[in-house]
Amino acid sequence: MTLPIFPCSPADRSHIYDVLMRSGVFGKSDADTVDEMFMQAMAQPGPDAYHFIGCWHDNDMLGFACYGREAMTKHTWDLFWVCVSPEARGKGVGGALLQFAVAQARANDGRLMVIYTSSTDAYAPARKLYQSQGFTPVARVADYYDTQDDLLIYTLRLVSGT
Amino acid sequence: MTLPIFPCSPADRSHIYDVLMRSGVFGKSDADTVDEMFMQAMAQPGPDAYHFIGCWHDNDMLGFACYGREAMTKHTWDLFWVCVSPEARGKGVGGALLQFAVAQARANDGRLMVIYTSSTDAYAPARKLYQSQGFTPVARVADYYDTQDDLLIYTLRLVSGT
Repeated sequence: MTLPIFPCSPADRSHIYDVLMRSGVFGKSDADTVDEMFMQAMAQPGPDAYHFIGCWHDNDMLGFACYGREAMTKHTWDLFWVCVSPEARGKGVGGALLQFAVAQARANDGRLMVIYTSSTDAYAPARKLYQSQGFTPVARVADYYDTQDDLLIYTLRLVSGT
Repeated sequence: MTLPIFPCSPADRSHIYDVLMRSGVFGKSDADTVDEMFMQAMAQPGPDAYHFIGCWHDNDMLGFACYGREAMTKHTWDLFWVCVSPEARGKGVGGALLQFAVAQARANDGRLMVIYTSSTDAYAPARKLYQSQGFTPVARVADYYDTQDDLLIYTLRLVSGT
């Protein structure tokens, strides 16, 4: 299966919401947060905006990712969201999305890419995905999201020798 | 010297900007970021908004802090900014602002308070202040802000036994 990745257009809004709601990992408040970020990105596109990308098979969105520059840093990028539709898992969709995001960050003077994620079991596949793409867990904040739900921070250096 | 702390009103906008610009630590882009957060807080006040507080002596703002709920967490609060006017340093202004913010977070179901800061020398007084108020450095992300400018994360548990 080829995994074509495209930057999102305004028409992708409902597809993204749908992928999140069917994920089994994210809930309505997450979907609403992403929706707000999406509307902001569509209203004011530009280098500092959130970048949304989708992975497609025919007319189905298999997954999406959202990344962008990290505020108040020099050339640090943040992978804010990555989510793959349940039917499309195990086919390399997440990896393809991450590779696209990393390549774009690198092509735009990115120096470091950061991912914030949860330590809970539900996020184990996500953590495995990040590590498979070369991201390293570098920090943990105990009980950050909730009691016994730690924040884990992964980073990937985008420039060799830095 | 008494150190009265008040929640900010719209009239405090220029005072906050002035304190930041004269700080010797923060620059114009920081001041603009805070200004945007301030305008947002004034336009849409409420429990989920940024909370700005000021420390005053007569008609002079000696310093301010900005704190609020951390998005996507359960009862975690974030101390976003604290800044003391150069003339007012060493008088306990920063400590008074932090104590007020911590007390407010605690009174509003806060479980954990988080501070993100830089590892550079310019932030050494800030780090000392955080530790003096019971915050503990729990995580470091190397080169996060810039090459050789790490992110340090401090936390304070607001509820005993959690």
